[in-house]
Amino acid sequence: MAKQKASASAHPNIALVKYWGNRDHALRVPLNDSLSMNLGEIHTTTTVEFNVKLEHDRLILNGAELEATSPAATRVVAHLARVRARAKIETKARVESKNNFPSGAGIASSASAFAALTLAATRAVGVELNERELSVLARQGSGSAARSIPPGFVEWLTSWDANNSYAVSVAPPEHWDLRDVIAVVSAEEKTIGSTEGHRAASTSPFLVERLNALPGRFHRVRRAILAKDLALLGPAIEEEAIELHSIAMTSRPPIYYWSPAMVRVIQSALKWRAEGLAVYFTLDAGANVHLICESKDAEAVATRARGIAEVQQVIVNAPGAGARLVEQHLF
Amino acid sequence: MAKQKASASAHPNIALVKYWGNRDHALRVPLNDSLSMNLGEIHTTTTVEFNVKLEHDRLILNGAELEATSPAATRVVAHLARVRARAKIETKARVESKNNFPSGAGIASSASAFAALTLAATRAVGVELNERELSVLARQGSGSAARSIPPGFVEWLTSWDANNSYAVSVAPPEHWDLRDVIAVVSAEEKTIGSTEGHRAASTSPFLVERLNALPGRFHRVRRAILAKDLALLGPAIEEEAIELHSIAMTSRPPIYYWSPAMVRVIQSALKWRAEGLAVYFTLDAGANVHLICESKDAEAVATRARGIAEVQQVIVNAPGAGARLVEQHLF
Repeated sequence: MAKQKASASAHPNIALVKYWGNRDHALRVPLNDSLSMNLGEIHTTTTVEFNVKLEHDRLILNGAELEATSPAATRVVAHLARVRARAKIETKARVESKNNFPSGAGIASSASAFAALTLAATRAVGVELNERELSVLARQGSGSAARSIPPGFVEWLTSWDANNSYAVSVAPPEHWDLRDVIAVVSAEEKTIGSTEGHRAASTSPFLVERLNALPGRFHRVRRAILAKDLALLGPAIEEEAIELHSIAMTSRPPIYYWSPAMVRVIQSALKWRAEGLAVYFTLDAGANVHLICESKDAEAVATRARGIAEVQQVIVNAPGAGARLVEQHLF
Repeated sequence: MAKQKASASAHPNIALVKYWGNRDHALRVPLNDSLSMNLGEIHTTTTVEFNVKLEHDRLILNGAELEATSPAATRVVAHLARVRARAKIETKARVESKNNFPSGAGIASSASAFAALTLAATRAVGVELNERELSVLARQGSGSAARSIPPGFVEWLTSWDANNSYAVSVAPPEHWDLRDVIAVVSAEEKTIGSTEGHRAASTSPFLVERLNALPGRFHRVRRAILAKDLALLGPAIEEEAIELHSIAMTSRPPIYYWSPAMVRVIQSALKWRAEGLAVYFTLDAGANVHLICESKDAEAVATRARGIAEVQQVIVNAPGAGARLVEQHLF
């Protein structure tokens, strides 16, 4: 076939137990098991067309063509090469991708981007992978993309066998009316990418102790989700968020993700909780604060978050679906 | 003698290797060796008069009498009891104490206060202790007061024998023209006192690894001071400051000393350094940022710090003297 086209959509996810550090950097096999929730309000849609007339891959992100030599383009082309190897073709592709959230908002889009790319590209070349195979493949493009393949609440286990580290759903989106109210405080590109952070993790004197403690925390978080127990979940995810940043800040050289605005939102959330609002924070490797609460409290949390001067935007997310094919192509 | 009076003055100190956690909470024997610089610009002056006519101890701090049942009064009275036990008397005392820095500035005054109190009270009752004995006694009032007894750059070693944990001078004040430019950002009382923080330290999963790493860092910091090598000192003290806060934040329950303003000053200092200014930060268990540089750069650092909106006051400190008797009584 001269032209083969498919489109897919996927959500970013917020890790409640974080992915930080790799057993294998090239294959993105993580040091530890992680657990996340897909973010239903925000998504990436990607169309991939393999076309024998193309002399090289073309990548259009949010309407702008990526420079072929840019790190982002290099990473996408490497992922297309994985798909081509599996389909035993050499055809070049045109990839268009759009996020329904602003690029400058500090919301990591690599998970949703590589999940959507993996599904669209494999289907475009006629390779039908199951969820597990898609997750393994997406993982090699961006580790946390493995978790944006299955729906709802998702666990991603590590393995000494790279083909055996994939994500599966712990519970579907409708299992629990949990909300992630993202307080967007950063319009700046983060200065240190996650890939660099994963490499630096092993230089923290605290990493080994973290790895010792993680299985117990993972179990607590998984049980809290299955039992829909926010009072059990909340303290565990705050511990986890602070620990991620402690590892980053004690890496050599240190990685500081903290910003004044982030600290302001965290302090506010602690105050609101002291006043009786059941809200807990988590953080990723950026400056935004993710405020976790139940749906009944989401509007109260969002309203308060909007009242903080440093908060530029608030996005309320229900648990989201997994990666899926979409009919409407972007081109 | 019916009335016995003496006055003493002492400086607070900034720990370059921190005191955090105790082997013995009651006797304030620390978990680890620490190392500090006395802060020459700020000091506490204290007059103690033992008077047989007094029926109970009276404590006046910055002109206001302390409530007898307040935690601060209880702590001072307990310290007076140690002095009385040593002098074998039961006479009550009047204690007046003044800081030359604002109480609300978040500058810990317990080190200078208990150092000055220890020297004034022992001399008032006619007990002449040497520097080592003063340091051991001051330590029992406030751990870091042990370090405000000797002059200049000071190390305080721990010991399994409580009477053997005292501070000594590593180098006199004139050894190195180092400066601590304090960026005062907090006018609030800190919500968690150091005493509580010391007790919580052992609940951090990272404490053991910190204790493993500290002897090496202590040696680096001590060598850097002896060699007057800021490029060696700086990274070590920043590591140490971040580690203190990592331990506090990963304690159960967590202790958050971070404030938006503190993060702003840290980020600024990192930026100034990237621009070529040789300045490094350290933190204590509060919100102020201590900017460490050499005297030639102190004015540049102070000017820049004053330019940060959240900075309320800047105090430039040369290395300070040890605790000493003063002629002028406060009453």
